Amino acid sequence: MAEPRTGGLGIDELSLATRNHGMPLEALQLDLTPVGMHYVLTHYDVPFLDTSSWSLTIDGAVTRPTTLTYEELREMPTVSLSVTLECAGNGRALLEPRPVSQPWLLEAIGTATWTGVPLASLLDRVGLADDAVDLVFTGADRGVEDGEEHDYERGLSVADARRDGVLLALEMNGQPLPPVHGFPVRLVVPGWYGMASVKWLRRIRAVTEPFAGYQNARAYRWREDPDDEGVPMERIRVRSLLVPPGIPEFQPRIRRVRAGVVVLEGRAWSGGGDVLRVEVSTDDGATWDDAGLDPPLGPSAWRRFSFRWDALPGRTVVMSRATDATGATQPLDPSWNVGGYGNNAVQRIEVVVEG
Amino acid sequence: MAEPRTGGLGIDELSLATRNHGMPLEALQLDLTPVGMHYVLTHYDVPFLDTSSWSLTIDGAVTRPTTLTYEELREMPTVSLSVTLECAGNGRALLEPRPVSQPWLLEAIGTATWTGVPLASLLDRVGLADDAVDLVFTGADRGVEDGEEHDYERGLSVADARRDGVLLALEMNGQPLPPVHGFPVRLVVPGWYGMASVKWLRRIRAVTEPFAGYQNARAYRWREDPDDEGVPMERIRVRSLLVPPGIPEFQPRIRRVRAGVVVLEGRAWSGGGDVLRVEVSTDDGATWDDAGLDPPLGPSAWRRFSFRWDALPGRTVVMSRATDATGATQPLDPSWNVGGYGNNAVQRIEVVVEG
Repeated sequence: MAEPRTGGLGIDELSLATRNHGMPLEALQLDLTPVGMHYVLTHYDVPFLDTSSWSLTIDGAVTRPTTLTYEELREMPTVSLSVTLECAGNGRALLEPRPVSQPWLLEAIGTATWTGVPLASLLDRVGLADDAVDLVFTGADRGVEDGEEHDYERGLSVADARRDGVLLALEMNGQPLPPVHGFPVRLVVPGWYGMASVKWLRRIRAVTEPFAGYQNARAYRWREDPDDEGVPMERIRVRSLLVPPGIPEFQPRIRRVRAGVVVLEGRAWSGGGDVLRVEVSTDDGATWDDAGLDPPLGPSAWRRFSFRWDALPGRTVVMSRATDATGATQPLDPSWNVGGYGNNAVQRIEVVVEG
Repeated sequence: MAEPRTGGLGIDELSLATRNHGMPLEALQLDLTPVGMHYVLTHYDVPFLDTSSWSLTIDGAVTRPTTLTYEELREMPTVSLSVTLECAGNGRALLEPRPVSQPWLLEAIGTATWTGVPLASLLDRVGLADDAVDLVFTGADRGVEDGEEHDYERGLSVADARRDGVLLALEMNGQPLPPVHGFPVRLVVPGWYGMASVKWLRRIRAVTEPFAGYQNARAYRWREDPDDEGVPMERIRVRSLLVPPGIPEFQPRIRRVRAGVVVLEGRAWSGGGDVLRVEVSTDDGATWDDAGLDPPLGPSAWRRFSFRWDALPGRTVVMSRATDATGATQPLDPSWNVGGYGNNAVQRIEVVVEG
């Protein structure tokens, strides 16, 4: 892993930023993120798979090892669930020094309605052995990280895999998955950062020892220093983001609004518990006021908030801060860690109010 | 406009790179770019429009000024055409010093089948005045560039607007346009850089003087220095890109392939004329060999090429170079210009061949 950096971004970081993409924040106006706007992070190349040759093998510590065709999976009962996903590295490029990886600012988010087969029903069908501890999900994407060549694989405990809402998704917003979102089938783990929701799924194996593959044991852990064993990044930390008000400058993206009443709106979410409060500041954090909250979109999706701002001419910074049912709230400043994960510090939007 | 930069990228450049996105180059395997993978460049915020309130006004120097609803436009005869689009700024971040704008490497490309109403048939319907010289296309997106607040607008000469293949597109790859690609209706100008294909189209006006708005008179011009009046960027320069072979390192994205026969493949295109030749080098430009060419996908779309490479263990750089019917060929090194446009220099892919 490259040493963390200060100052400008390297071409190596840009080569990730030009192929992955965040959700332009104006899409926070919408309950569901339209196709092409949901964030995408792919570790390796996007594989282009064909449903006629695709199959899903479920094996290891199971009673009835099974291989399912796409048609067989499609025939199983499905459920639909709106889920907010976020990349564990969202906010990484705002850390100082900056861990070298995909350089996200704030946009590595999106909400979609996923339709798929509950994983629990599939596990019932194959019969998990009593000594199974983890399920290992293997994607069709393969590459090299820190010198280690491997298929993208993540392990999930049996208890986490059996939770309500964990799906093998076949559709996104009522359409077959686009290739970048894991066509034909991906895992969706609501409430967890996106690395758990393995795309291009081709195998699930039950194992009797905790999975120690690269993406669990080395990546996606909160480490204070490189020698720290670290704590796995799992549930999405509480966060809120505002729709940038008014119109943008092309570059830099400072906002311009007209003086008068401006309705600020945004979305807030947490993998830890329901969002119970969102505060807004329109004076760069000097004062905070409670925003109004709409009913939640669902148990695993973001919640809209809004606030009437009487904007006076001048330059200011607007911000929002969410708190969830566990009492967790967004910090004003990020906490640094080796991988640059979980930076849920409050967003700052520079605004010029024109008289 | 900010001064050109050397060295690392600023957060202001990254704030564009995280919201816009290129086409991951593995999609060069496919004739058509799947939804969510086609490049996207939006100057301002993506507007979310509703077909029930959307309308298109055609006015100015016309005999019968007209306003069409979405349903009225949909009732007109349509044609379908596969078109390769590329951003005029593709390759900008590889220039030294680097013009400050969206920092593209090589991925600002994509090919889609667009279905829409030929613009010429609409112009016949409204009747252009004899003294009309330009048509001005206005999008629903608004912002500020170089201090100038404006709706995104581009002018096109009457002759260019009347060309075969210029469409008001309603569908992309057989589906309604996604919001980022201009829903509900966008212009598509085959063979030209993407800035001409105005998204979220809401007005077309015929004018009797050449249009001198920001996006024609100030942006998208080839200038040697800032005081140079410049030459408009119009037709896409000849370019080829290879599918990066083998598998990637996550970061940096050096490729690994196994020694033996490797089929290199890619796509080549030009807005100047048909692609007639593609050469490939597997030894960092020391020698070049002709690649095989598939039949063209269409008059305005890329053409597949392929080459059998007997890869020997070691480190190398693979490259491709296309030539079109006008004799234009890709340079090995880019030509610098103020806006960072039209950099069609050959791609360089670092490859480690493992024995």
